[in-house]
Amino acid sequence: NETAKAELGRATWKLLHTMTLRFPEHPTADQREALSSYMYLTSRLYPCGECAAEFQELLKKFPPQTSNRRAASLW
Amino acid sequence: NETAKAELGRATWKLLHTMTLRFPEHPTADQREALSSYMYLTSRLYPCGECAAEFQELLKKFPPQTSNRRAASLW
Ligand SMILES: Cc1cc2nc3c(=O)[nH]c(=O)nc-3n(C[C@H](O)[C@H](O)[C@H](O)COP(=O)(O)OP(=O)(O)OC[C@H]3O[C@@H](n4cnc5c(N)ncnc54)[C@H](O)[C@@H]3O)c2cc1C
Ligand SMILES: Cc1cc2nc3c(=O)[nH]c(=O)nc-3n(C[C@H](O)[C@H](O)[C@H](O)COP(=O)(O)OP(=O)(O)OC[C@H]3O[C@@H](n4cnc5c(N)ncnc54)[C@H](O)[C@@H]3O)c2cc1C
Repeated sequence: NETAKAELGRATWKLLHTMTLRFPEHPTADQREALSSYMYLTSRLYPCGECAAEFQELLKKFPPQTSNRRAASLW
Repeated sequence: NETAKAELGRATWKLLHTMTLRFPEHPTADQREALSSYMYLTSRLYPCGECAAEFQELLKKFPPQTSNRRAASLW
């Protein structure tokens, strides 16, 4: 339902925003890979099918930016 | 700070609970791998260092249960 979808969306955006804002300024290759994988896995496991599909499309057009904190946060 | 940590915790638990409750009843090997990887990546990227460390310890003691929806949700 719509309320549950909105609440879940807010919770998830909060986690994703906070995560990217805390992402290292100078990430290692391993940390970059971790963030990128995390985004793709989120798009597979996100518990709203329509939203997951939309997020997958978004990731195709705009692959996650993981070069540094600023790039990840603005992405 | 404590308020931010509690809000982030609530947002994250909400996402994780909803995700496991929507996990397939009969997951494929690929879906099981996705959920497991997601949990380990969360424990690496979680934007509260102390909490991330605690979650990593928890995962060592209790590896994610991914055999089906019920097992994942109860885990
Ligand atoms: C991965 C994901 C996919 C989603 N897909 C859908 C969907 O297909 N249909 C649907 O009805 N709802 C979807 N949602 C939920 C939606 O984005 C909102 O979170 C929800 O509607 C609550 O709205 P709100 O006005 O409280 O905004 P909030 O959730 O508070 O949104 C504000 C914040 O969310 C971000 N944001 C919100 N929407 C988007 C977006 N579409 N793309 C990029 N950033 C965004 C902004 O960065 C902003 O910080 C999705 C949520 C997530 C996390
Ligand atoms: C991965 C992760 C690790 C965390 N680590 C810490 C930490 O080390 N120190 C700290 O002060 N806070 C930590 N937190 C935040 C804490 O768990 C709470 O979310 C926060 O304190 C808000 O508390 P609350 O009473 O509103 O509970 P809520 O966040 O609403 O908690 C209630 C729900 O959270 C679950 N839950 C809460 N705490 C735990 C836990 N420790 N283990 C398993 N399930 C739990 C329960 O399943 C329940 O559904 C962590 C959060 C997450 C997501």
